[in-house]
Amino acid sequence: MSDATPPRRCVCPGSFDPVTEGHLDVIRRATALFDEVVVAVVHNPAKAGTFDLPTRLDLLRQSLVAQPGVRVEVVGDGLLVDFCRDVGAVAVVKGLRGGTDFAYELPMALMNRHLSGLETVFIAGEPSLTHVSSSLVKEVAFHGGDVTGLVPDVVLKALLAVRDRT
Amino acid sequence: MSDATPPRRCVCPGSFDPVTEGHLDVIRRATALFDEVVVAVVHNPAKAGTFDLPTRLDLLRQSLVAQPGVRVEVVGDGLLVDFCRDVGAVAVVKGLRGGTDFAYELPMALMNRHLSGLETVFIAGEPSLTHVSSSLVKEVAFHGGDVTGLVPDVVLKALLAVRDRT
Amino acid sequence: MSDATPPRRCVCPGSFDPVTEGHLDVIRRATALFDEVVVAVVHNPAKAGTFDLPTRLDLLRQSLVAQPGVRVEVVGDGLLVDFCRDVGAVAVVKGLRGGTDFAYELPMALMNRHLSGLETVFIAGEPSLTHVSSSLVKEVAFHGGDVTGLVPDVVLKALLAVRDRT
Amino acid sequence: MSDATPPRRCVCPGSFDPVTEGHLDVIRRATALFDEVVVAVVHNPAKAGTFDLPTRLDLLRQSLVAQPGVRVEVVGDGLLVDFCRDVGAVAVVKGLRGGTDFAYELPMALMNRHLSGLETVFIAGEPSLTHVSSSLVKEVAFHGGDVTGLVPDVVLKALLAVRDRT
Amino acid sequence: MSDATPPRRCVCPGSFDPVTEGHLDVIRRATALFDEVVVAVVHNPAKAGTFDLPTRLDLLRQSLVAQPGVRVEVVGDGLLVDFCRDVGAVAVVKGLRGGTDFAYELPMALMNRHLSGLETVFIAGEPSLTHVSSSLVKEVAFHGGDVTGLVPDVVLKALLAVRDRT
Amino acid sequence: MSDATPPRRCVCPGSFDPVTEGHLDVIRRATALFDEVVVAVVHNPAKAGTFDLPTRLDLLRQSLVAQPGVRVEVVGDGLLVDFCRDVGAVAVVKGLRGGTDFAYELPMALMNRHLSGLETVFIAGEPSLTHVSSSLVKEVAFHGGDVTGLVPDVVLKALLAVRDRT
Repeated sequence: MSDATPPRRCVCPGSFDPVTEGHLDVIRRATALFDEVVVAVVHNPAKAGTFDLPTRLDLLRQSLVAQPGVRVEVVGDGLLVDFCRDVGAVAVVKGLRGGTDFAYELPMALMNRHLSGLETVFIAGEPSLTHVSSSLVKEVAFHGGDVTGLVPDVVLKALLAVRDRT
Repeated sequence: MSDATPPRRCVCPGSFDPVTEGHLDVIRRATALFDEVVVAVVHNPAKAGTFDLPTRLDLLRQSLVAQPGVRVEVVGDGLLVDFCRDVGAVAVVKGLRGGTDFAYELPMALMNRHLSGLETVFIAGEPSLTHVSSSLVKEVAFHGGDVTGLVPDVVLKALLAVRDRT
Repeated sequence: MSDATPPRRCVCPGSFDPVTEGHLDVIRRATALFDEVVVAVVHNPAKAGTFDLPTRLDLLRQSLVAQPGVRVEVVGDGLLVDFCRDVGAVAVVKGLRGGTDFAYELPMALMNRHLSGLETVFIAGEPSLTHVSSSLVKEVAFHGGDVTGLVPDVVLKALLAVRDRT
Repeated sequence: MSDATPPRRCVCPGSFDPVTEGHLDVIRRATALFDEVVVAVVHNPAKAGTFDLPTRLDLLRQSLVAQPGVRVEVVGDGLLVDFCRDVGAVAVVKGLRGGTDFAYELPMALMNRHLSGLETVFIAGEPSLTHVSSSLVKEVAFHGGDVTGLVPDVVLKALLAVRDRT
Repeated sequence: MSDATPPRRCVCPGSFDPVTEGHLDVIRRATALFDEVVVAVVHNPAKAGTFDLPTRLDLLRQSLVAQPGVRVEVVGDGLLVDFCRDVGAVAVVKGLRGGTDFAYELPMALMNRHLSGLETVFIAGEPSLTHVSSSLVKEVAFHGGDVTGLVPDVVLKALLAVRDRT
Repeated sequence: MSDATPPRRCVCPGSFDPVTEGHLDVIRRATALFDEVVVAVVHNPAKAGTFDLPTRLDLLRQSLVAQPGVRVEVVGDGLLVDFCRDVGAVAVVKGLRGGTDFAYELPMALMNRHLSGLETVFIAGEPSLTHVSSSLVKEVAFHGGDVTGLVPDVVLKALLAVRDRT
């Protein structure tokens, strides 16, 4: 018992519009590193996405239903560092697909460290998912391409529903 | 007590020839992310360094004496993934100074994941130490430059002793 | 005759708004690698360009009139991989100006490979044209700069006509 | 007296919406390299910024009041190379935060060299300000974060005034 | 018959010390782009490798025995551009694993273009083989790691034979 | 006369083994930025080059004979920052060929700034010389390739003399 420590939590932030297998890969890897993973949906009211916030949350929760130690929450109006403090997270986890990803993420990671000491840890995304991002998956799906396997089944259905509507 | 979990260990590998403030920065950040940090000195018998193995270990241990939750060990002839399994580590921690660092580290990180599922987490090194590496510090010190503040005091003394000897 | 093979076709896609000497350099290099080159104008109806689609095609065709083995077509609503299958292309050809260009193109290239096995080949653009892109050429021309030599003569005239109109 | 030369001028261009300590760091370093520094506010009438042009100029001038050899001007409708010729500048000075910054700046630098022979010199920004850009500072400030030390005091006040208004 | 053209050949150069599944992936992709692929073993007599030249050739040929349209040759003392001219190749094919790979290869590609007009085409390596290079595979194998699946079976045996000998 | 200022000096360091047109391009550009350019041959006694120090200096001086405001000197055993202080230089000038070049140069530039406040300014090398480096030129020349135009004539002769000797 003397070795016991409080659980270590991390936050996986994103817009998840919609969640892809690339996101799920990073979230699953995070569960191997930390005791609890809080998936944080960053919501920008000024920027309409493809899916509204309740749908994004719903798709995420359905995709993660079998994943213990993971919960999904919304980052409100405030800063990510405030959200992380509120949920008791020691780190933000980000997946990287290449060196330019790191260059893009670095200023935000250093800003968060500056603001509250919050650390960002980067992990290499699964290479076989390098081509999987929300925007590219949507572009392919909406032009009639098959994205089976690149997103969870519930997201596949949701994408097809959007395509048929437009 | 139901929240208690076994301690999470990570490994910070390197040749540490000698340890610099850049290394110590990454090690200290790792202690905020994991319960225990094993600093792993990778020893390549085929490649003579500036300092021999016992000296590197000694300088590391003196530099880390005030750092709880950190211990220093030698990686023997085997693979880093075997060492990590033996010490019960869930991750390797590496500091990055830029996108090209990541590109250089990525194949090794993916190889380790392939071999044993071992994950590598990357953290941004403190930007004000971007110019601090063992090789550059030695080059400066051996050409008469002042590296005070770039290495711990015990290393500064050791570097000057090497310089005066040659 | 036993050595004879069917002609190998490649596709050079782009928005060509308008075509520049940078584009023509890549197209000409592609003719040395493949028997036939299909220049594919990707048309996004949701995004108004500087030139409308018929003008882009016209400028391209005038610029390529002396280039045997090259034809210009429009990619309709579907995916680029479907267009490539329809024209019988074995590869997409893309010019690169630097490592970050590659990082940007990589996910799309891997997505196309995933969707249909279509390969993307990258060739180094002529370094002396590193500064030549449609957007930078337009910015210079519309602020009164001389872009002679950076675009074909027909494009130069078209750019000046747009500038004088606004 | 035979060694005397005419003063060497450089231009530090930017939109400065608003000026940050990152900009001031580059401007100050430029004063050590050249006799006179012209800070050139690039004004894009088509793109509404956070602060209007007179306010940007005012914030810059207040921030640079103690800096001899520096003056602030507006780049009008024309090209930067024409502005540089008019003020007699031998070079543009740009701060770099990483290799991807350079890749982004390179085409514009080569275009300016092509248009008028104007050279661009790149200097490494202060690493401890890697996270400081106008856009990131605004994002933090408008979400309630403290950006003291990342911008001059007059800018801090101006940012808080904008935040309270919205 | 009027559409028939002479076969298009490309060259895949490397030291192949030894061939890996990463090399084979690029060679196989090249066969989809060109009619014939010449695998060119670059031999540097001044630099002793792990395997001697006859062994490298033998391992390559055994690994490629089922691959039609591919042959293996040695580049002698001369330049790669001379070798390519002698075998009638229109292009060199190189696999890329990331943007830094491209930056490394670019000067050599441009030098070859300068010397003889020889073009280099770059293709994205299979992402799931990002961690597979001759040097990393050897490092792992010689430290007791299992590299099954990363190299052809004949190479696996050859690596184990070397390991047992040392 | 009141506008007169003391001359501004910069240092262009390198091993120049041998000088290439790529080096001369950067040196010439430096003369447009600073009043005087000191070309500093860094000499590493532990590392035998292709040409000995007196030959490197001789080739540089012959190549620069028509270039006013440039002189060639040897950096002795000390640090580059000490050399720069001794010659009264305000900056080191380095040519960049891409973003990875910058990533490589950045730690040394920041170390020099740390040691003495010495600034490094980076300028874009002439793109049409991207393939020109001492090592690549020597590799080509020693394998029988023609490097005319990539090095000054005196260097061309010197390279051929070395080739014929070996």
